[in-house]
Amino acid sequence: MTSRTRLTDIAEQAGVSTATVSRVLNGKQGVAEETRRAVLSALDVLGYERPEKLRSRSAGLIGLIVPELTNPVFPAFAQAIETHLAEAGFTPLLCTQAPGGVTEDQYVEILVEHSVEGIIFVAGLHADAEADTTRYHQLIANGVPFVFINGTNPAVQVPSFAIDEVRAMEIAVRHLSALGHTRIGLATGQRRYSATRGKTRGFQDAMQRHLGTEDAPVISTFFGFEGGAAAAGMLLDAGCTGIVCGSDLMALGAIQHVRSRGLKVPADVSVIGFDDGPLLSHTSPALTTLRQPVDAISRSAVATLVDLVSGSPTPRSEILFAPELIVRGSTGAAPRGA
Amino acid sequence: MTSRTRLTDIAEQAGVSTATVSRVLNGKQGVAEETRRAVLSALDVLGYERPEKLRSRSAGLIGLIVPELTNPVFPAFAQAIETHLAEAGFTPLLCTQAPGGVTEDQYVEILVEHSVEGIIFVAGLHADAEADTTRYHQLIANGVPFVFINGTNPAVQVPSFAIDEVRAMEIAVRHLSALGHTRIGLATGQRRYSATRGKTRGFQDAMQRHLGTEDAPVISTFFGFEGGAAAAGMLLDAGCTGIVCGSDLMALGAIQHVRSRGLKVPADVSVIGFDDGPLLSHTSPALTTLRQPVDAISRSAVATLVDLVSGSPTPRSEILFAPELIVRGSTGAAPRGA
Repeated sequence: MTSRTRLTDIAEQAGVSTATVSRVLNGKQGVAEETRRAVLSALDVLGYERPEKLRSRSAGLIGLIVPELTNPVFPAFAQAIETHLAEAGFTPLLCTQAPGGVTEDQYVEILVEHSVEGIIFVAGLHADAEADTTRYHQLIANGVPFVFINGTNPAVQVPSFAIDEVRAMEIAVRHLSALGHTRIGLATGQRRYSATRGKTRGFQDAMQRHLGTEDAPVISTFFGFEGGAAAAGMLLDAGCTGIVCGSDLMALGAIQHVRSRGLKVPADVSVIGFDDGPLLSHTSPALTTLRQPVDAISRSAVATLVDLVSGSPTPRSEILFAPELIVRGSTGAAPRGA
Repeated sequence: MTSRTRLTDIAEQAGVSTATVSRVLNGKQGVAEETRRAVLSALDVLGYERPEKLRSRSAGLIGLIVPELTNPVFPAFAQAIETHLAEAGFTPLLCTQAPGGVTEDQYVEILVEHSVEGIIFVAGLHADAEADTTRYHQLIANGVPFVFINGTNPAVQVPSFAIDEVRAMEIAVRHLSALGHTRIGLATGQRRYSATRGKTRGFQDAMQRHLGTEDAPVISTFFGFEGGAAAAGMLLDAGCTGIVCGSDLMALGAIQHVRSRGLKVPADVSVIGFDDGPLLSHTSPALTTLRQPVDAISRSAVATLVDLVSGSPTPRSEILFAPELIVRGSTGAAPRGA
């Protein structure tokens, strides 16, 4: 490919003139930072290498600890956090866990040994009410700044950024009850996670408020596909026509279980997921789900961690983010006579 | 939860007795390594923390560079490689790229500064025929062992592990021609990637062999959803009833484009994806796709890198892995009269 076509391609992708692309690639002054970034992004999107002189030194390493990558919401968080860290000049080191693999504590130890400037924990052990919090207190004692995403812990006073589970359940129950469902159940993960506790409380409050139901059924299994299938079985046995799930994977498992009983989604049973991601609009049926504002959560967490790293005073509070209900094909009117 | 229930849970999950769980948790001798690992995995799966004394020191850090996490095949590789590295006692540091973010070269520099024992590149710049290979020669000169996954580069003599693109296309064309399709097109990514070159060559050879077609249509856009939609438009205009795609995201884009023209998948047009992953069996229609043996590729790459790190002689060759055609609902008999 000639350098002529390359310039034209990049200019088109970035929405600027080829002259501007030239200026940026040659490191000339007088180009707005936003424009410069658009050109560099276009270069990356089209897969071209950046000229050596445009590479800036990193402001330092930031550790990013996520539980695993099977649930698509975690790669989505990793990608969004990485983008925002890079914008702030930091280099992310992503630590992911797999069963039998490296643990959160081992990663923390390694990150500290390698002098990271700070750490972002996504749905880590901080979100587990039964887990020990010593590691976090040690980090505080060692002066390593960190923030939590999804899952606060009253024993650890650091800034945390989380989806509003209670509000999410209110939105889900309102949607299903407006469709005429009266028997609704929640299928969610392990009870010791703060995500489960928030959802359970929010769900039961909403069921009380909208339908006058006391002790609405909540089945705690685990957040994967099989966990959803198992919980759905118990909720169908309890007569539910609406199932709210703690993750999209659980929702896919629930849909498969509903079908295995010869029932249809949404004609017989409505199912709502939790998280959302690019593939969920292509499922059969397309999944109605509570979307986590992954980018907004990631941006806020990164901005706060950057403040902490630079020593700015930062409130140690929990910031909650509202979910959006994305209505697709897996929810519909309650079956007649249900 | 009492420690009694915890032991029972773990024993059930690991498929061993509670006495064995106790022995492992107390670090007693006389337990087979496989059993010990099963118990630790059960602990992780159930989300319990490992007792301090069971944590072993890492054999060192291994850098793992993946292009991005939006295409689900990359998180799948990251997770599989992480598992195999941890089994070998190494700690993975995952470096992912996002448009406008940290580049492959910046990551390599940081990993070397932090004394990694080796690096695994997944579909990196080595797979781009137009990219400079200086970084790889510097690594060789500095004695940092590394291996490539997906994408070989004749200019860099290191072990590489890749899906057999040529064979994949042979399988796809055979499947579609057996279903009666005669006009088949390939929708794939940028031409400068070795993945595209292998697919293009394999596709055109297979079309020649199975259908006597010279110069079968190949549209090179890019590997994402919109790239698939755009390529599908051109292939439909060329009269194709079968579309083989370079990624599952492209296939989902192609399906959406086919439908936007009022045509049905697979009644009017059959679509085949590439990669596979847990969500692709839940799409509408469930996607017929060429599955990459992610785990086998990852296991071989890790085993070879571990050999290189320990100084064992290792052949600098390219190992190719056969894909599997997973037939689901997006392919069917060619429409009559096509």
